[in-house]
Amino acid sequence: MNHDNTADGNMEQQIKSYKKEAAYSYTLGAFPTYELIKSKPEQVRKVLVDSSFTDQNNLKKLCTEKSIHLEYNDKLIAKISDKENCYVAGVFNKYSCTLCEVRPHLVLVNPSNMGNLGTILRTAVGFGIYDVAIILPGADIYNPKTVRSSMGALFKLNFSLFQSFEEYRKQYAQHEIFTFMLNGEKALTLQECPNVKLYSLVFGNEATGLNDSFLTAGTSILIPQTQDVDSLNLTIAVGIGLYVFTGHH
Amino acid sequence: MNHDNTADGNMEQQIKSYKKEAAYSYTLGAFPTYELIKSKPEQVRKVLVDSSFTDQNNLKKLCTEKSIHLEYNDKLIAKISDKENCYVAGVFNKYSCTLCEVRPHLVLVNPSNMGNLGTILRTAVGFGIYDVAIILPGADIYNPKTVRSSMGALFKLNFSLFQSFEEYRKQYAQHEIFTFMLNGEKALTLQECPNVKLYSLVFGNEATGLNDSFLTAGTSILIPQTQDVDSLNLTIAVGIGLYVFTGHH
Repeated sequence: MNHDNTADGNMEQQIKSYKKEAAYSYTLGAFPTYELIKSKPEQVRKVLVDSSFTDQNNLKKLCTEKSIHLEYNDKLIAKISDKENCYVAGVFNKYSCTLCEVRPHLVLVNPSNMGNLGTILRTAVGFGIYDVAIILPGADIYNPKTVRSSMGALFKLNFSLFQSFEEYRKQYAQHEIFTFMLNGEKALTLQECPNVKLYSLVFGNEATGLNDSFLTAGTSILIPQTQDVDSLNLTIAVGIGLYVFTGHH
Repeated sequence: MNHDNTADGNMEQQIKSYKKEAAYSYTLGAFPTYELIKSKPEQVRKVLVDSSFTDQNNLKKLCTEKSIHLEYNDKLIAKISDKENCYVAGVFNKYSCTLCEVRPHLVLVNPSNMGNLGTILRTAVGFGIYDVAIILPGADIYNPKTVRSSMGALFKLNFSLFQSFEEYRKQYAQHEIFTFMLNGEKALTLQECPNVKLYSLVFGNEATGLNDSFLTAGTSILIPQTQDVDSLNLTIAVGIGLYVFTGHH
């Protein structure tokens, strides 16, 4: 075992707890780090491993294959992981993507919770939706919390940030728009769910949903629910929307 | 305003941070407390309110209507709420329910996360499923965290705890069983979803799912998903299962 704690000292001093402004972020934990290495090896600055990590051989092999620097550094992992139980971390460059014009999109307007955002990304990939637009302001998609709750799904999809829904719409004018709203006009039922190829499913913020201007942005959709709840949880609503719209193919 | 901080001193000394063994629990926050008062007034020991709460008149009115003791007690709220921003709390007796024999059930086998459990309860009520079985061991359904994430939906449904799936099954032998598993035999598609009246939808633990003994407990169901994720999040899977099975009515 090569406890390479002293090497690369200069770079180490520069690596700090996650900052929104920084040009890099982290994967915390083995699972998202493996997903990072497999899906976006070109963005990995280095991989950090704690000396007590049990799957070192596999990690070494994978890093060698992808020509990624692997560094034993218990202290740095503890520092960036906020004292969680974390034995592996990846340091990666923040990168940008372009959404695919000919595939359906998921559009999140002002998502506020990083855990929810990550879960939604994971769900999108689970249903074969690989293009996600985020309308700002919104939760930080690069934050290690988002990355972790996405279980690394972040690295398997294209995401793009927009200053407004109009900016998104201008760029992707061909997509048929479906806005999910508590006062949506069309009920999403098993019997009558829309069967379209190129669509954007649009969801609002956890607390406030979409405002009424979205009633006329396309077809407004209501997921039928009882009067006994205020609303469905955002991640559940997104899961159902994705399940139904991708279910025709 | 009646700052009744000194009254009821004896009872106050007995009220502590939530304990699993205790005969009572709390609703923390105005929303779940209102739901408690409206749905289960007979179980409320008292309602605590912080002097800075802004909606005092409505709360007073509701408590008077239901003959519930309202107590101003900033210190006690701070104590039981673990320093969250909490201005209203309800103290309620833990109670037990019986599941309705002639309605469909949701069955959760060893759910481990209180936040997920609460979200699932909220989703069940949202889709009109008012009977939930929990197979132990499982997350504490009475814990204030579960109650809070259920948004008070806990008080609108029947729940019952069982030591084993067999114990549940013996008591409710008429329900058609559907077990949700990654190796389920039948894909849950829009085109071919089962249309039955009296059913139990069975879901496993967040990390481990259902073990293979559940393959033969009834019809095993797979929610189709890509190879790019390990699995769907439990709450999402439950949401989709509920949406589809309740969607025929």
